[in-house]
Amino acid sequence: MNEQTIKPYVIGLDLGGTNSVFGIVDSRGEIKATTSIKTQGYDGVNGYVEASVEALQLIIDQVGGIDKIKGMGIGAPNGNFYNGTIEFAPNLSWGRDGVVPLAKMFSDRLGIPVALTNDANAAAIGEMTYGVARGMKNFIVITLGTGVGSGIVINGQLVYGSDGFAGELGHTVIRKDGRQCGCGRKGCLETYCSATGVARTAVQFLKESQEESLLRTIPVENITSLDVSIAAEKGDMLAKRVYEYTGEILGEACADFAAFSSPEAFIFFGGLTKAGDLLMDPLKRSFDEHVLRIFKGKSKFLVSGLDGSSAAVLGASAIGWEI
Amino acid sequence: MNEQTIKPYVIGLDLGGTNSVFGIVDSRGEIKATTSIKTQGYDGVNGYVEASVEALQLIIDQVGGIDKIKGMGIGAPNGNFYNGTIEFAPNLSWGRDGVVPLAKMFSDRLGIPVALTNDANAAAIGEMTYGVARGMKNFIVITLGTGVGSGIVINGQLVYGSDGFAGELGHTVIRKDGRQCGCGRKGCLETYCSATGVARTAVQFLKESQEESLLRTIPVENITSLDVSIAAEKGDMLAKRVYEYTGEILGEACADFAAFSSPEAFIFFGGLTKAGDLLMDPLKRSFDEHVLRIFKGKSKFLVSGLDGSSAAVLGASAIGWEI
Repeated sequence: MNEQTIKPYVIGLDLGGTNSVFGIVDSRGEIKATTSIKTQGYDGVNGYVEASVEALQLIIDQVGGIDKIKGMGIGAPNGNFYNGTIEFAPNLSWGRDGVVPLAKMFSDRLGIPVALTNDANAAAIGEMTYGVARGMKNFIVITLGTGVGSGIVINGQLVYGSDGFAGELGHTVIRKDGRQCGCGRKGCLETYCSATGVARTAVQFLKESQEESLLRTIPVENITSLDVSIAAEKGDMLAKRVYEYTGEILGEACADFAAFSSPEAFIFFGGLTKAGDLLMDPLKRSFDEHVLRIFKGKSKFLVSGLDGSSAAVLGASAIGWEI
Repeated sequence: MNEQTIKPYVIGLDLGGTNSVFGIVDSRGEIKATTSIKTQGYDGVNGYVEASVEALQLIIDQVGGIDKIKGMGIGAPNGNFYNGTIEFAPNLSWGRDGVVPLAKMFSDRLGIPVALTNDANAAAIGEMTYGVARGMKNFIVITLGTGVGSGIVINGQLVYGSDGFAGELGHTVIRKDGRQCGCGRKGCLETYCSATGVARTAVQFLKESQEESLLRTIPVENITSLDVSIAAEKGDMLAKRVYEYTGEILGEACADFAAFSSPEAFIFFGGLTKAGDLLMDPLKRSFDEHVLRIFKGKSKFLVSGLDGSSAAVLGASAIGWEI
């Protein structure tokens, strides 16, 4: 390898439970080439890495070969930055029962440095590198998807904690003895403020009243956060109240997070942010109502500036610059 | 001033609502000289600084003069590290209604650099410099006094946040719509787990039952956390339950804090820690019961290793080394 070669690109891998999306990204956050494979259905993790490298080879060639690539960043569930491992990830058939050294496996096959962290941390680094958090030293990214994740930046550094797993704000308890959470505990923020949480709230509101609602035309087990958002935009009062309730609880949680790290901004990322002001207005109102006086008005509330369809890949790629 | 002079000491000032205690400290945390004055009753903050400098001069002379002093650290309520100011401190007659540039005032009078932060942050730096947190990069100090304060260290740095006021964990809400807090909100951790909170719990338990208790000999308005601790040590069941309840709630709170920064240790500091295992046993049990599985067993629970009577001065002095 020529030491003088300029390496203008990084690879990002957004590793989800269903799909693995790869992108080759330049320093301004432009995706130069992209490909994807299924995440599961291989002969273990070795099969997954082989399939990945095969798919990657095509897009690496498109940008001029591996010598043009500085490194690779992976955003993955239960990713441990310190060890480059995926640890006991319940939704991955090949990562469920142990510790998978995925960063090393890719690094060995590709001959470039590879770093790995969880998807919310990747989103935070993505915002700092290419997005609305450029220039910020203290902010919190909260991902509102199927679950609620978070990436916390303090003094310009991502917070990994003593073990690499810090920043699980979706699993702080916002309602003592509240809704049952997938983690085995009760009342986690995630049970209220994820896409799933929004659907649960809608079903609860429909059961608690006889109020007319567009949502009554949908079997309750099929209601999604998108249905609620569409109904709310059509003026459905019950659906609007679902988002108010969600924003209210999220604002309470952010008030507690402010007492921890007093961030310059909270940045929201993921599917639920499509609800826009339906969510953001009650969220800001609730924050101001619940936060300790000295923090009032100090934090901005922003929605991710990264292109939704590629944000996760961009986020993952961003950690490729840091190694 | 001779540039070649070795400066082996720092000054620490523990600025409390009643007393201001000064100490001159060496790099091993040994207090070489100490003095104190009343904090209030002067002609404004100028009078306070004059009285301080007068008292300080005597102990500065004892250690060989100001040339031996590297800097000064102040631990003060509502202290802002970034600005070196005390801002709207409700318990200080000369600091209640505005922003007092106390670090600059001392620096101008003494001719040495002066840094200032709140008392809990000072305690955290004290533990890192001289105490049980030596060598730790990620830990949280929780001060259990009249109120509940905190100092958070992440990646070896104190967390000041975007405004200098981060780390107000005593004002995270642990019981929605719970006890009225002095901050104007309800259910703050401080209303349950401070010395005042312990007394409130004792009064509540006494009112809720007819159970016999040594505490019934004390008028309820006079009961202190020390009374509760003495009664508990004598085997009083109600008093023991007060500490169990306190530890239980503190453990829940620490479980949420672990989800934020996954610290290597929680370090407890202040009067309430004198209760020892009465508090620490239920605290650890509650933490293990409430924390997210991936953090279980990862955090140590320690009591401050700094000498109680001088810990606050040592903590304050420690920030004198950092400037």
